[in-house]
Amino acid sequence: MSTITEMTKTELLARRAELQETYDSYKARGLKLDMSRGKPGAEQISISADMLTCVAADEYIAEDGTDTRNYGILCGIPEARRLFGEIFGVPADNVIVGGNASLTLMYDYLSTANWRGVCGGQPWASQKAKFLCPVPGYDRHFAITQFLGIEMINVPLSETGPDMDLVEELVKDPAVKGMWCVPMYANPAGITYSDETVRRLAALKPAAEDFRLMWDNAYCLHHIREPHDTLLNIYTEAEKCGNEDIVMMFTSTSKISFPGAGVGAMAGSPKNIADVKSRMTVQTIGYDKMNMLRHVKYFGDLAGVKAHMEKHAAFLRPRFDAVETALSRDLAGKGIAEWNRPNGGYFVSVNLMPGTAKETVRLLKEAGVVLTGAGATYPYGVDPADSNLRIAPSYPPVEELEVAMTLFCICAELAAIDKLLK
Amino acid sequence: MSTITEMTKTELLARRAELQETYDSYKARGLKLDMSRGKPGAEQISISADMLTCVAADEYIAEDGTDTRNYGILCGIPEARRLFGEIFGVPADNVIVGGNASLTLMYDYLSTANWRGVCGGQPWASQKAKFLCPVPGYDRHFAITQFLGIEMINVPLSETGPDMDLVEELVKDPAVKGMWCVPMYANPAGITYSDETVRRLAALKPAAEDFRLMWDNAYCLHHIREPHDTLLNIYTEAEKCGNEDIVMMFTSTSKISFPGAGVGAMAGSPKNIADVKSRMTVQTIGYDKMNMLRHVKYFGDLAGVKAHMEKHAAFLRPRFDAVETALSRDLAGKGIAEWNRPNGGYFVSVNLMPGTAKETVRLLKEAGVVLTGAGATYPYGVDPADSNLRIAPSYPPVEELEVAMTLFCICAELAAIDKLLK
Repeated sequence: MSTITEMTKTELLARRAELQETYDSYKARGLKLDMSRGKPGAEQISISADMLTCVAADEYIAEDGTDTRNYGILCGIPEARRLFGEIFGVPADNVIVGGNASLTLMYDYLSTANWRGVCGGQPWASQKAKFLCPVPGYDRHFAITQFLGIEMINVPLSETGPDMDLVEELVKDPAVKGMWCVPMYANPAGITYSDETVRRLAALKPAAEDFRLMWDNAYCLHHIREPHDTLLNIYTEAEKCGNEDIVMMFTSTSKISFPGAGVGAMAGSPKNIADVKSRMTVQTIGYDKMNMLRHVKYFGDLAGVKAHMEKHAAFLRPRFDAVETALSRDLAGKGIAEWNRPNGGYFVSVNLMPGTAKETVRLLKEAGVVLTGAGATYPYGVDPADSNLRIAPSYPPVEELEVAMTLFCICAELAAIDKLLK
Repeated sequence: MSTITEMTKTELLARRAELQETYDSYKARGLKLDMSRGKPGAEQISISADMLTCVAADEYIAEDGTDTRNYGILCGIPEARRLFGEIFGVPADNVIVGGNASLTLMYDYLSTANWRGVCGGQPWASQKAKFLCPVPGYDRHFAITQFLGIEMINVPLSETGPDMDLVEELVKDPAVKGMWCVPMYANPAGITYSDETVRRLAALKPAAEDFRLMWDNAYCLHHIREPHDTLLNIYTEAEKCGNEDIVMMFTSTSKISFPGAGVGAMAGSPKNIADVKSRMTVQTIGYDKMNMLRHVKYFGDLAGVKAHMEKHAAFLRPRFDAVETALSRDLAGKGIAEWNRPNGGYFVSVNLMPGTAKETVRLLKEAGVVLTGAGATYPYGVDPADSNLRIAPSYPPVEELEVAMTLFCICAELAAIDKLLK
């Protein structure tokens, strides 16, 4: 098979007509498929149904005797801090267990840093703060940074993580206050930071004392297939360099228990945790401890969570396989697209021929398939190459996904040919 | 009985010796009683136990078909917005249903106003913002304002609400950006704003366009005994004056269902709700909808909530009666204290002889009874008269409360005599 760039104009036009016909036939089917967000389907969520009944109404007492139904306990019940401590790989004392969203914990952390400062430092807003953003990345991270008026700087992400030479150079600017990291099964690239990357991040000596790695380990247990990726513990590595204040870690059970009613948590050094508590003690009387207790009673410990995650993997594996199958079958060797084959997470990241991502999304939308918008994986919604698309295969049933992916490949090729014919 | 100020020094010394003896005997009992926070006791919370089982694991679907377990729905499921709309007395579209704490909704609102501004206005922090604080008031309100660096101005609270002549004068200062209000069964004063007060607040024309009444209607349904207080609907009144943007309303089910796992909500004009949503859409994917659904399924509608509140009242009534009984029996006519007899809410506010509140709290603490700290009901923790104390009778069992209140009266009288003898 020749790549598309090797084809003559006549060949391209012929192939185009063929694709257009298939596209039109799909369009006529009036599809309505959503691959826009990394949300599990209803059947997958039902895996956790027993959590809702695992604590009897009169048993909502924490191990320290706290009535979880009542007010109090700022940082979470002890057993929940311990469980998240296991997940993060840090002592329970370094953990704050929050509400149903780690995203809110991140927003609260950065918005407070922005107007108030970090650990007694000056407010970031008064220093024209900048943030490093590995790309492609998570649109909601970028939305927070943009909302707060923090300038975002793109840092290319490779198979081993962000370009560390560039990062080490950029942090010499004291206005650079932090960096977004989804270190495991990155959203959307699906890669996991290498040991060397983690060590270099842990050892960073930024000009800004209040520089923070926003370590969003959202997919830390979210393996799909063997071999599982492994991630070095950034906190342990940072501690070795006396650098433990550099990292704020986040995770949640959104994709472990219930996306809308899970438990979010954060972890950090004693200094950072004390700093966060000084705000939280004003902001809340305490997060939902009943939901925390449900989670701990249901999972027990880290081993329990891991066993549970295998059930999720069983749901996700055929979906990721369907994506891989369609891409390999319809696009491999054509010079149109490159993609990853992640071992976990929720996304497949596809790099199309530059200048064709928006058009691909448009064509798909016209045929009834909604994808995350082109550009969404970049700060300010601007992918300079107009190339990256994020496929979220978790929600649709496999058979619908197969249809959507076939159409995806048609649209990508159509867009590529149109680009070449221009 | 003569008031304490009419007694001779000899009489005072004799009474003092008598009181000291009783005090010492109580102290010897090694009491451990907590009247510091307005939290319900375990038995009272159990009233709502059936809420935890009223939705089967496979029935967590909202009326619009939303799977409440999954992501999404920024402002809350329709039925929850409708229920809180009934409670607030506004249309469901004017309501945002949040997480487990209205306090967090208030904090988020004010912190955003402070760094970002309200409805496109300038950040309050750039304008040396001030806030009006009816006193005595709620310590957690004051803590938020203080944390944000907003200057607090005391406004005396009477039986009819805040001193409106003073309020109308103070809002001529464009730096005055808002005012805390607990309009019904005020914390701690127990009074409810009169119709005239509500109308004057609704008609306020502050110099600051972005002035907001923080209308914390935490006790809107929290009657204890007949006659129930009634409160005019501030939103309706404000609308009549074309002034609906002036009020942000807050409430929660913390003292209706579970203090630690209830549902908080806010309401306001379309303009204000759109403003809040513009932040929330960055801050969260959505609050816990499963808990919202549990609440709606359990209560049904406003009538259901009201019926439920009668069960709470049955728990609280004997506790408030015990406080009233002790105060009347031991302090009435002595010129030592004045107190309210509220028809609802969670507190009894006691004004002691000026200069004796701190000493009373100290004496109580030494004997094992914890009260909210003296001064806590004032901004910056400073009660200029050192007179006001907040009694929270909900938590202890009645028999313990009777002991604590007897001791309270002893300590108040001891402190008063010592003050006179100085």
